[in-house]
Amino acid sequence: MSERRFDPTTGEWITFATHRQNRTFLPPADACPLCPDPNNEWDGEIRRTDVQIAVFDNRFPALSPTPPAPDVDSDELFRAEPASGRCEVISYSSDHNATLAKLGPERISLLVNAWADRYQVLGSEGHAYVLPFENRGEAIGVTLHHPHGQIYAYDDIPARPLRELRTAAEYRTRTGRCVNCDVVAAELADGRRIVAESEHFVAHVPFWARYPYEVRIAPKAHTPSLVAVADEARDDLAGLLHRVFVGLDDLFGFPLPYVLGIFSSPLNGEASVAGWDGSWDDISHLHLLISPPNRSATKLKYIAGTEQMGGAYSTDIAPEVAAATLREKIPQS
Amino acid sequence: MSERRFDPTTGEWITFATHRQNRTFLPPADACPLCPDPNNEWDGEIRRTDVQIAVFDNRFPALSPTPPAPDVDSDELFRAEPASGRCEVISYSSDHNATLAKLGPERISLLVNAWADRYQVLGSEGHAYVLPFENRGEAIGVTLHHPHGQIYAYDDIPARPLRELRTAAEYRTRTGRCVNCDVVAAELADGRRIVAESEHFVAHVPFWARYPYEVRIAPKAHTPSLVAVADEARDDLAGLLHRVFVGLDDLFGFPLPYVLGIFSSPLNGEASVAGWDGSWDDISHLHLLISPPNRSATKLKYIAGTEQMGGAYSTDIAPEVAAATLREKIPQS
Repeated sequence: MSERRFDPTTGEWITFATHRQNRTFLPPADACPLCPDPNNEWDGEIRRTDVQIAVFDNRFPALSPTPPAPDVDSDELFRAEPASGRCEVISYSSDHNATLAKLGPERISLLVNAWADRYQVLGSEGHAYVLPFENRGEAIGVTLHHPHGQIYAYDDIPARPLRELRTAAEYRTRTGRCVNCDVVAAELADGRRIVAESEHFVAHVPFWARYPYEVRIAPKAHTPSLVAVADEARDDLAGLLHRVFVGLDDLFGFPLPYVLGIFSSPLNGEASVAGWDGSWDDISHLHLLISPPNRSATKLKYIAGTEQMGGAYSTDIAPEVAAATLREKIPQS
Repeated sequence: MSERRFDPTTGEWITFATHRQNRTFLPPADACPLCPDPNNEWDGEIRRTDVQIAVFDNRFPALSPTPPAPDVDSDELFRAEPASGRCEVISYSSDHNATLAKLGPERISLLVNAWADRYQVLGSEGHAYVLPFENRGEAIGVTLHHPHGQIYAYDDIPARPLRELRTAAEYRTRTGRCVNCDVVAAELADGRRIVAESEHFVAHVPFWARYPYEVRIAPKAHTPSLVAVADEARDDLAGLLHRVFVGLDDLFGFPLPYVLGIFSSPLNGEASVAGWDGSWDDISHLHLLISPPNRSATKLKYIAGTEQMGGAYSTDIAPEVAAATLREKIPQS
């Protein structure tokens, strides 16, 4: 079963991929599917002795290019469709115990290029929205410890990016400006929530952070996706990202769990879906969001009652205080 | 600091309540703030020897009726407001180790009446939306084990209920019908996802369940809130809820963690906010949602990459299969 179903009470789609029940769950280090397995000793994904960055199809994909027909009948109220799209895994290193902080800016530069490359290729395959993300740490439920991320290519724009695009379209219609350009300029002018800066990018705790130590990274100039970032500016971003990862791991003295997501311009479909009559690029401003669940070294913020049922986030650390703490931990050059 | 800030990139408000950093965290059983403390030996909330259901203000509220002015200046882009509203705690029992399954239908009937009463009283105080919820189990981050729930009274309609109301308004405009009435009728007609039923209510795994063992309970007839449920039907609901709680705790043989939420009609403000020109009650159909994070006895579903960043839920158990399992566990009368 690999299908998506429509929730007629919220207008959102939910994906069901029952084969994922059997996905690899915290395997022992000597049978890690992401460690190099040149002689195919444990059915690993990487048949080489060494790799830097490797991208391949997820063996247990939630979305696939050729999904089967849905299990249930579809009608006007209860709509079911094949779960089409593509799910990839992106390994950051051959070393099972590496971290992005330890791998350094050059490897992160390669990773930025890989994200940009897959964004472009998956767009050319016709997918509507490409979301690279990383789930890191058992606190947010990783099933493989090997340093890696994922890339989901959706065949329509998923709910959260769509909400951002609709909000950006409204803002642009009302003011003539890009909301993310205005946010970046306002954060730079205020300064209290900036945690690191490079020539082309800025890293800040958002004024409205949903997680105490949330970090948002965006280009200073209007840029729809990584593809529009020049080579030199990609290295600049990699250097900034590296400093942020070093600081996050230094915050409590252990590799900080987080969810990372990269928000870019949609690749197919009309911007009228978001209420905009121009191009997607007009209302899309690249940003990376890193959301660690920790509110202290030993306590996590949970998405429970008010967040899950209300959609109303509540948090207990002021963004200005969190930013001051992070600024101390993040190398400033 | 007790303020809310607007996220101009999504149009949502986030609450900051820094005093909540010091909230009581998993206290020892002999200093539980919800256990009866008639002689005020440990500054407990309940100065009686015994109570059945007790409701009182949360000592560490995210929202309060008289919040201070925000810490930061507000401008057109970065808006900050006092975090006004009210947060209550509702204790289910004097017994620290009780569960709703063990307390039985009569106590749950009292609880249903307390939810209805607080909904009405908090509405008469002028709050816009009343959300009773329960966070249960360390897996979803409870800080107190004593059986209890919470009630948040928001001064505007929070994001998720607002999304449901807007979707219901669109559906009603398009079809002339209530989407939740149609969902209940369709689930009853299909039958595969029904897990329990009473005279006036039905419990089902939604066709679009975001969590594997999610249970949704709704009145068969259009009913905007618990206040509109007659006494006899409240007892009927309590009996059904009791059976569901018994079944959930029997599913894996331990008290199942979950987040429970009760969605009702807004109490103040105009329905035009949701794109509807009639009354809130026209587009509001009471429903309770119970979302357990477990996908098995030992594995949890985490809200990570695709859910958190994409807003696109992905799950790995078919709702029809989960419903069949639950139906075996839930007493059918």
